[in-house]
Amino acid sequence: MEDVPNKRILLKHFVTGTPKEMDMELNVGKVNLRVPQGSGAILVKNLYLSCDPYMRGRMREYYDSYIPPFVPGSAIEGFGVCKVVDSEDPDYKPGDLVTGVTGWEEYSLIQQTKQLRKIQSEDIPLSYHLGLLGMPGFTAYAGFYEVCSPKKGEYVFVSAASGAVGQLVGQLAKLHGCFVVGSAGTKQKVDLLKNKLGFDEAFNYKEEQDLDAALKRYFPQGIDIYFDNVGGVMLDKALLNMRLFGRIAVCGMVSQNSISASVGIHNLNMFIFKRIRMQGFLQSDYLHLFPEFSEKIAKYYKQGKILYVEDISEGIESAPSSFVGLFSGKNVGKQVIRLASK
Amino acid sequence: MEDVPNKRILLKHFVTGTPKEMDMELNVGKVNLRVPQGSGAILVKNLYLSCDPYMRGRMREYYDSYIPPFVPGSAIEGFGVCKVVDSEDPDYKPGDLVTGVTGWEEYSLIQQTKQLRKIQSEDIPLSYHLGLLGMPGFTAYAGFYEVCSPKKGEYVFVSAASGAVGQLVGQLAKLHGCFVVGSAGTKQKVDLLKNKLGFDEAFNYKEEQDLDAALKRYFPQGIDIYFDNVGGVMLDKALLNMRLFGRIAVCGMVSQNSISASVGIHNLNMFIFKRIRMQGFLQSDYLHLFPEFSEKIAKYYKQGKILYVEDISEGIESAPSSFVGLFSGKNVGKQVIRLASK
Repeated sequence: MEDVPNKRILLKHFVTGTPKEMDMELNVGKVNLRVPQGSGAILVKNLYLSCDPYMRGRMREYYDSYIPPFVPGSAIEGFGVCKVVDSEDPDYKPGDLVTGVTGWEEYSLIQQTKQLRKIQSEDIPLSYHLGLLGMPGFTAYAGFYEVCSPKKGEYVFVSAASGAVGQLVGQLAKLHGCFVVGSAGTKQKVDLLKNKLGFDEAFNYKEEQDLDAALKRYFPQGIDIYFDNVGGVMLDKALLNMRLFGRIAVCGMVSQNSISASVGIHNLNMFIFKRIRMQGFLQSDYLHLFPEFSEKIAKYYKQGKILYVEDISEGIESAPSSFVGLFSGKNVGKQVIRLASK
Repeated sequence: MEDVPNKRILLKHFVTGTPKEMDMELNVGKVNLRVPQGSGAILVKNLYLSCDPYMRGRMREYYDSYIPPFVPGSAIEGFGVCKVVDSEDPDYKPGDLVTGVTGWEEYSLIQQTKQLRKIQSEDIPLSYHLGLLGMPGFTAYAGFYEVCSPKKGEYVFVSAASGAVGQLVGQLAKLHGCFVVGSAGTKQKVDLLKNKLGFDEAFNYKEEQDLDAALKRYFPQGIDIYFDNVGGVMLDKALLNMRLFGRIAVCGMVSQNSISASVGIHNLNMFIFKRIRMQGFLQSDYLHLFPEFSEKIAKYYKQGKILYVEDISEGIESAPSSFVGLFSGKNVGKQVIRLASK
């Protein structure tokens, strides 16, 4: 079989500071749609690609993290939903739909097939396997239930609340019987939280002169659980408002992506006064819970108990700007790139 | 019965910044050695008074802490070992030795007798009930076993390691089969840690240009448990050196007593990379464990398995300078004031 053109997005170089579109470039390579015989690999057509903040970490030349950096000059990698075109792995056949780590390109040869999951259910939007039913959704699930130790009636604060993770945390907290307030960066997102996603309250942190005062307004009784997606000043001010035995799940520090410029945290003395527990986590530490997560969240979705908001951009050409947009809060809901629908 | 003179140490005013001797003053009051009939109170002669860093918190006009502030113009309160002189409480009789919260004065009338404990054993130095067998010792015990979740063979770092709490944490960690390194602020303290208290290693943080490099030297494999008595820069650098699933017990932030001047913490991104759990605690949350603590630690002491180092100053007149000395690290071991031996 002949080679066909394969548009892809390369990382040009390691990134310092906030990622910019010019840190990536579109390139047209070639790909043979046949898997080399005996390789055990599969060849997929990428349908949806996921933009996730953690990918920023892989653009840095730092080898002590939980995941190695990208290779400059090569295609960016991330989660995707893909259709199998050819297979040398007996577990997969052409036409199968799978989700897992793939390349930011139209077609990918995937050697490590063990990390893939087959998509069975057809009654959930395919792209949701990158959000609600994928890594971000599972992050919300594991973080909320396993790290936050939630109890009915507790006061829960979620930052970056309309994002891929935050919107599910808030909805799970509501289903758990908690009082939930979210923060976000635009009026549109705040409206979404209050009117569509069922948060009790929400506020635009960019319109608050004094975040401590804002938190005191929404939590006069204090905060039992802070699900922290941003770090920085918001974390510092949340510390001032935690209740006795409060818990903080450290999920992301998107505000702090440039280490050297990171904002210092000053209110750690609250850890003693209020006996706070703060814990960093990765969803990958809880993979034994993935089956129960899939089942439970798919059921909630089909019962109409939870919603999921996506921001879908069209075409691989849109990938760099979509990714960069994560860091200025351009996306409304989970950012996905659609390359093809089937 | 006639009144007798009663030397006491008053807090003159609320304190900003580091406490100074002039924030306190010696005053001679009067006390009647008879308890008012029917009051249920006891009158004690104070034998030993304890200087503890937490008392700094009570010198600040801040009502949202776990303990209310001192009252300016009144005697400072703290833990003491006392002999009962007169009693209207049927549980106590003259001559009984008790420990609990008393006043910084020669004689105190104690209304809240429920907070006192009788001292039974005569084969342990009386002053140890303010340290090894008192609040600091119990802080070490509860913090190490209940907050740090220690496992045999783990790497443990203790700051302010020769202090009232730190010296016991290190010895308990050694008994648990851990590798233990302590930091302290003088050569004398470092020698004490290595040669008397059984720490594997110790270093003088004041002689280190680069605390990150020092920690990497003593913990090339990283730190599993950091028992934090100081906060500030040491905490920030410890974060850089934590191992996967490391735990930090936040026991004290003696370096950060002036909130406004507190040093910002910048390395919180390590919480996610290394899945760190950090927890503030107070010994008072674990009081159900006090009986097992007393029994176990007294046994270890009698068996010669643990030691305890005290710094004893003589006379109530020495109390202000002894207390102030805590914040410059003047004391070597647990700071106690002896008013009388019996």
